[in-house]
Amino acid sequence: MIFEKIAALKADGTYLPSCYVGVKGAHIRYVGVTPPDEDYGERINGENRLLMPGFVNAHTHVAMTLMRGYGEDLRLQSWLFDRIFPFEDKLFSEAVYWGSLLGIAEMLMTGTTSFTDMYYFCEDTVRAVAESGIKANIGRGVSCFDATKRFADLPAYRDTKVLIEQYHGTEDGRILVDVAPHAEYTTRFDILHDAAELAAGHNLRMHIHLSETASEHKECVGRHGKTPTRLLEAVGMLGRPLTVAHGVWLTDDDVRCLSQYDVTLAHCAKSNLKLGSGVAPVEKYRRMGLPVAIGTDSAASNNALDMVDEMRMAALLAKGISRNAGALPAGDVLYMGTRAGALSQGRADCGDIVEGYRADLVVMDTTDVGLSPANAPLSNVLYGAGSRAVHMTIADGRVAYRAGEFLTLDIERVRFEVQRAVDKITGQ
Amino acid sequence: MIFEKIAALKADGTYLPSCYVGVKGAHIRYVGVTPPDEDYGERINGENRLLMPGFVNAHTHVAMTLMRGYGEDLRLQSWLFDRIFPFEDKLFSEAVYWGSLLGIAEMLMTGTTSFTDMYYFCEDTVRAVAESGIKANIGRGVSCFDATKRFADLPAYRDTKVLIEQYHGTEDGRILVDVAPHAEYTTRFDILHDAAELAAGHNLRMHIHLSETASEHKECVGRHGKTPTRLLEAVGMLGRPLTVAHGVWLTDDDVRCLSQYDVTLAHCAKSNLKLGSGVAPVEKYRRMGLPVAIGTDSAASNNALDMVDEMRMAALLAKGISRNAGALPAGDVLYMGTRAGALSQGRADCGDIVEGYRADLVVMDTTDVGLSPANAPLSNVLYGAGSRAVHMTIADGRVAYRAGEFLTLDIERVRFEVQRAVDKITGQ
Repeated sequence: MIFEKIAALKADGTYLPSCYVGVKGAHIRYVGVTPPDEDYGERINGENRLLMPGFVNAHTHVAMTLMRGYGEDLRLQSWLFDRIFPFEDKLFSEAVYWGSLLGIAEMLMTGTTSFTDMYYFCEDTVRAVAESGIKANIGRGVSCFDATKRFADLPAYRDTKVLIEQYHGTEDGRILVDVAPHAEYTTRFDILHDAAELAAGHNLRMHIHLSETASEHKECVGRHGKTPTRLLEAVGMLGRPLTVAHGVWLTDDDVRCLSQYDVTLAHCAKSNLKLGSGVAPVEKYRRMGLPVAIGTDSAASNNALDMVDEMRMAALLAKGISRNAGALPAGDVLYMGTRAGALSQGRADCGDIVEGYRADLVVMDTTDVGLSPANAPLSNVLYGAGSRAVHMTIADGRVAYRAGEFLTLDIERVRFEVQRAVDKITGQ
Repeated sequence: MIFEKIAALKADGTYLPSCYVGVKGAHIRYVGVTPPDEDYGERINGENRLLMPGFVNAHTHVAMTLMRGYGEDLRLQSWLFDRIFPFEDKLFSEAVYWGSLLGIAEMLMTGTTSFTDMYYFCEDTVRAVAESGIKANIGRGVSCFDATKRFADLPAYRDTKVLIEQYHGTEDGRILVDVAPHAEYTTRFDILHDAAELAAGHNLRMHIHLSETASEHKECVGRHGKTPTRLLEAVGMLGRPLTVAHGVWLTDDDVRCLSQYDVTLAHCAKSNLKLGSGVAPVEKYRRMGLPVAIGTDSAASNNALDMVDEMRMAALLAKGISRNAGALPAGDVLYMGTRAGALSQGRADCGDIVEGYRADLVVMDTTDVGLSPANAPLSNVLYGAGSRAVHMTIADGRVAYRAGEFLTLDIERVRFEVQRAVDKITGQ
């Protein structure tokens, strides 16, 4: 396909008022202001359209879309122990499949083309990813509260091995596998160390929750005399490319430490607010050299998987908390929500509109009321129309969503099966 | 019209899983779980629908939708002096009319049925309100930097008199007029005093910006030895029913003072963040007895006029800043965005689904992906689907928006005329 005379925004916010973008197979093969010589098949008129890189959701638990609205207005402990954990105790494979598809549908309709996930029943999420056309880095969350068990004894170890052997790099690389210890406070030194060894042995990336709440951060210092960050360093985890989620309570020393390694922070601004965890000062982190991407966290604590909403929140919070309207300008936050996310997934050929990159694209409808008048296209998307303006979402050159229609999944069926699964789990 | 077997949310968040709501003329005439005896004409099947009170935008400058995206990522002084004021210098009557219609269209499609406005060229905004079917409290912003001029010498005085005499209470009360001094720092003691006298003489409400920025608040104390709030009290303005916008920097004494009068704070969370003004601790204000409603401020500093987005932000900020996930639960924030707003406009018969009240209603489409699964309808609207789920918006019993169509305005024409006006003003 080729987009003709279309306005486009690059990952850094650069605006091209009219260009040609040709897609062949899974890749962008042409970007220019004049028409290419080559034939790209279907021609898409760029009038009233704005092309952007697909958004990358750098941290979520997609199957938890089942729990959207299930634990509202509750403090973290009550949210976890009274609502989330009892629900998860009854979770089953089919529920995870349908819940994953629902979350993926929401991401596709809001312009997300790739996400980084941590959960269990991962093969069901893999199936949903494979069918829907979206991309994902999938990690089996590892936690262990049994002092007699080593990493290799855990179901999470066996699941991770299956994921690596059967799915890593499949679907032409759409599916990648990460090694994903849940967090410092839900594992142990030796588990984290062994997980890092496993990742090193297979040349995989890692994914972990880090310093999400003040109490978790403080308790780690109390127990080990080290911050969670310095603990990860001590066990060797920072030797692997790593996504750390949340990082609300990182010290300056933590940030300096993380910045020396191949680490990206996944900023989950809305979830951090909704659970009362606080506000991560990501503008400072970026200034100190730590790459920051953007994640939604799960729909159980967000309760949306909408990256435009998330980018908007990241920018607004940075401005409001620092009391500087110039903080985190639109181009920076778009980069965080696209290219920085792709790099955090180890996908060097994703997250921007560049020849040779994967064709992960979102097309906005500029006739949306929130995009009028055309004073500032990127700001209009981020702050005006939001994801409502998403007209089309393309991953690896395949149209997955267009004008309210899902081309790769049956949304009626998904909603029905999700409700059935939730009713079964909650005993209704 | 009558909604049959429809789920409904009252202003306080109470959920009615299935009810009948009958509308005759401009009013709700029946609310019950059984069908009424009377005939209400058109029957609307409540399947896959959720009925809510229309949202009330308690503080905006609707014509500034012309300036959406026109001053991005700038500190307040630069935003005002380099972008907004030069634009406004070239503003003209027709531009305000079309800009108002664009903002009204955005509000209708996102479920807002009434707004409180402060600006100039108010007759053009009145015309847009009258035609579109929405409700508005309209105030001519009063400012004065000429020490030789009294209130009665100002164009704003003459404009306010015209508004009062020609438009107050017109359109069956849809249009109300407020007296609206812009702020303490843009007026003087005698202007504020005389404005309050004018309001008293016509039994009108008032509307003002108050303690929006730290510097404005501090400078007032420096100049007058009083906070802006205590200054308003001293000049007699608190004797009138009053909406104070922003209030980011109110002291506890200010809040106690305001709570003793008929004052509502219009919380503009997104604008306060975007301009770097800070975060108003509205949960504390409410605990101290100050009624809080919700406003978007203008699209020049938001950049949307989306009350669901604004309610979500209010709730999330309250939770995140207080580090208490239980702060500002969903029912409270809905009340702020509906009934509290209506009361701040002096519309005692608006802002809830109650027999005898005005039929200001919004109908959500519960098949939206963000409303699935149905664990918590109100949270799903606020945090999940957002305003994307708005299916129909009704003000005074008249359908103004339904399924992507505007029934009271020509949106193509509005967008065209807005762009033409903006191009003329910016010299393009």
